[in-house]
Amino acid sequence: MIEHAKPGTGSALDHLECVKCQRIHDADKLQNVCPCGAPLVARYRLAQLRDCLPRAALAHRPSNMWRYRELLPVRRTDSIVSMQEGYTPLYDVPRLGAALGLGHLLLKDEGANPGGTFKARGAATGVSRAVELGATKVALGTNGNAGEAWAMYGARAGVETVVSMPVDAQQMTLKICAGCRAEVYLVRGLISDAGDFIRRGTQEHGWFDVSTLKEPYRLEGKKTMAYEIAEQLDWSVPDVIVFPTGGGIAIAAMYKAFCELRELGWISGSFPRLVAVQAEGCAPFAKAFREGRRDSDFCHGASTFANGLRVPKSFGDFMVLDAIYATKGSVVTVSDDEIRAGISQAAELEGVFLCPEAGAVVPGVRKLVDRGIIGSDELVVMMGTGNGLKYPDAVPMPEFPIVGG
Amino acid sequence: MIEHAKPGTGSALDHLECVKCQRIHDADKLQNVCPCGAPLVARYRLAQLRDCLPRAALAHRPSNMWRYRELLPVRRTDSIVSMQEGYTPLYDVPRLGAALGLGHLLLKDEGANPGGTFKARGAATGVSRAVELGATKVALGTNGNAGEAWAMYGARAGVETVVSMPVDAQQMTLKICAGCRAEVYLVRGLISDAGDFIRRGTQEHGWFDVSTLKEPYRLEGKKTMAYEIAEQLDWSVPDVIVFPTGGGIAIAAMYKAFCELRELGWISGSFPRLVAVQAEGCAPFAKAFREGRRDSDFCHGASTFANGLRVPKSFGDFMVLDAIYATKGSVVTVSDDEIRAGISQAAELEGVFLCPEAGAVVPGVRKLVDRGIIGSDELVVMMGTGNGLKYPDAVPMPEFPIVGG
Repeated sequence: MIEHAKPGTGSALDHLECVKCQRIHDADKLQNVCPCGAPLVARYRLAQLRDCLPRAALAHRPSNMWRYRELLPVRRTDSIVSMQEGYTPLYDVPRLGAALGLGHLLLKDEGANPGGTFKARGAATGVSRAVELGATKVALGTNGNAGEAWAMYGARAGVETVVSMPVDAQQMTLKICAGCRAEVYLVRGLISDAGDFIRRGTQEHGWFDVSTLKEPYRLEGKKTMAYEIAEQLDWSVPDVIVFPTGGGIAIAAMYKAFCELRELGWISGSFPRLVAVQAEGCAPFAKAFREGRRDSDFCHGASTFANGLRVPKSFGDFMVLDAIYATKGSVVTVSDDEIRAGISQAAELEGVFLCPEAGAVVPGVRKLVDRGIIGSDELVVMMGTGNGLKYPDAVPMPEFPIVGG
Repeated sequence: MIEHAKPGTGSALDHLECVKCQRIHDADKLQNVCPCGAPLVARYRLAQLRDCLPRAALAHRPSNMWRYRELLPVRRTDSIVSMQEGYTPLYDVPRLGAALGLGHLLLKDEGANPGGTFKARGAATGVSRAVELGATKVALGTNGNAGEAWAMYGARAGVETVVSMPVDAQQMTLKICAGCRAEVYLVRGLISDAGDFIRRGTQEHGWFDVSTLKEPYRLEGKKTMAYEIAEQLDWSVPDVIVFPTGGGIAIAAMYKAFCELRELGWISGSFPRLVAVQAEGCAPFAKAFREGRRDSDFCHGASTFANGLRVPKSFGDFMVLDAIYATKGSVVTVSDDEIRAGISQAAELEGVFLCPEAGAVVPGVRKLVDRGIIGSDELVVMMGTGNGLKYPDAVPMPEFPIVGG
């Protein structure tokens, strides 16, 4: 039996709710999606927490995302599978900001996470809760980074992990999955094909599907990025947050988090505008946004060297678009060449080495400033979702003089 | 004019001292080494700090290494060039510990630093202080990681950086140095040859030499790893700390830090035993230790795939050996094959992906336990000096089934 922890001492998780039909589901058994087909999200006893957990109580807690444990779904402390992910740096990038026409630009450096990407957050939360609820073999379709993160946390938890990803995934990702003894299947195709493979395996072999939004708790890990930005800004929020966007679920997760923070009374006033940057070769959100729609079309022939941005259709696209509309956000697209130039600019001006996905934010911000969508005096946070170390092929091999010997 | 900050409000740096002849030098001008040829180290007004800075005052500070700013050499807050390096995770690796015969093994995960290695600490401190004191072009010989870190922090500070390293340095390191616009020279040879090249350039072009211990402040950044371990263990220390060891300066730096902590009254009792793990193909400290000597011989034909361990002779070797002897530490060697197996073991059991240097600690610990040098009930910290993401060639490319399409 799992005891419901008291607010202030453990998870305040109350129930799961379908984001479409609002039906309520038991949070204390393994769940995938609602019978109606839509994702489930976790709901907490926020009113109770508001009374008993002042935000100042967090100040003494360890510097990782489990400092928000009342707002995370794991019941028992000893269920937490952690490598101290999260509470990543948020710092000024003044020279890059000036080059982009901004007076105050901050970088949230998710490359500091285990495995070098923000995917560690969803994996830590998802693995912890899946194991707590009795899953023994988890499976996901991925472009690479999420699969690698689940392989890592799966190894640490001692749970079997099945990963399916496009055959052109990063080599380092394949090596880490192998090192962590994940069961890997490569598909000739896109992440959507990888997801199809997992769905079939779920039916045939009883794997527990942990692909994006096919279970409720990865989202909960991702949302902590919003808690952290608010706390790191002393419980204020920036004017704009800019995301590299493939599936876009980080945007939906952070919107959920800001709603929770407001309900807790920890923040007040306007939300940050949530802005998505997509690759020109795969921009279903940009098209939907241009057309004022609340869902997206499948992007046929999706193509970009930034693997994580190559998501032809996001399960949960409506949640992402809702978050963008609700916050008066926007969507912008950039070319692969602009991404490469963005990586160079961040390295040259700030010594920061971004992965291609995060590199997309650099030209994205420039376009938003040029078009007046972001004002030059606004406080802007760019999400550096991953570490450039993972993508050796994204930058050309330099030629340097060889001396002596 | 640089004002001497009051203890408790800024750096308590007092002077520089030669580690050999004890001569005192001015800390507020650019200095390399003592006229006697030996390294200079920073000394602080610890007695004053002891009276006015309780260790509990740190609890509210930001989670990076600048939380120890009174004990770091940078005078002005606005001189600090930081990407929020340090205060890296320290966490249990229980399954790896059990496999190595230990009841309590912790990993200090330095891979979370900017650039993925502990070298960020020395670079942040060194760049900050060099720029504060007026350096405009800094230069260093390196096996790669330190050069990359200086290139990154140099770019962020807007200071020119010259890096010389062996021609077989990691490709990713070369790409990052190029991205950060460092001036790079490759040498056919070892880090010692790279250092010779820099020394000549220093004389010819007036570069400021920031190679290991050729300036006093990189050491100060590295020492913060010891502060953090003590603080993260609630101001106690482990029984043993195990280091992958090339130049070994982290050992000397952490020994200095533990001495400072004792003088401050922040820790008491015995120091941790500081243990070095070297590669069989380059083990000058192991030889010196075996022979009971206080300095090391140049290791001709030094060879290991763990680049950072390939230091044929460390400038400051006597400081490293002194720290090992003073703490009743030890030195052990491991083969390249054992290192590869160690990387696999950490990934499989804990989901942790170590760089080759850090991977060396895994078989090192096993040997130390087998030989009774570490007791199975002792608290052991292994230094995970860097992220495996940086070394794609260190692990073989797996073959996975290709499905569908």
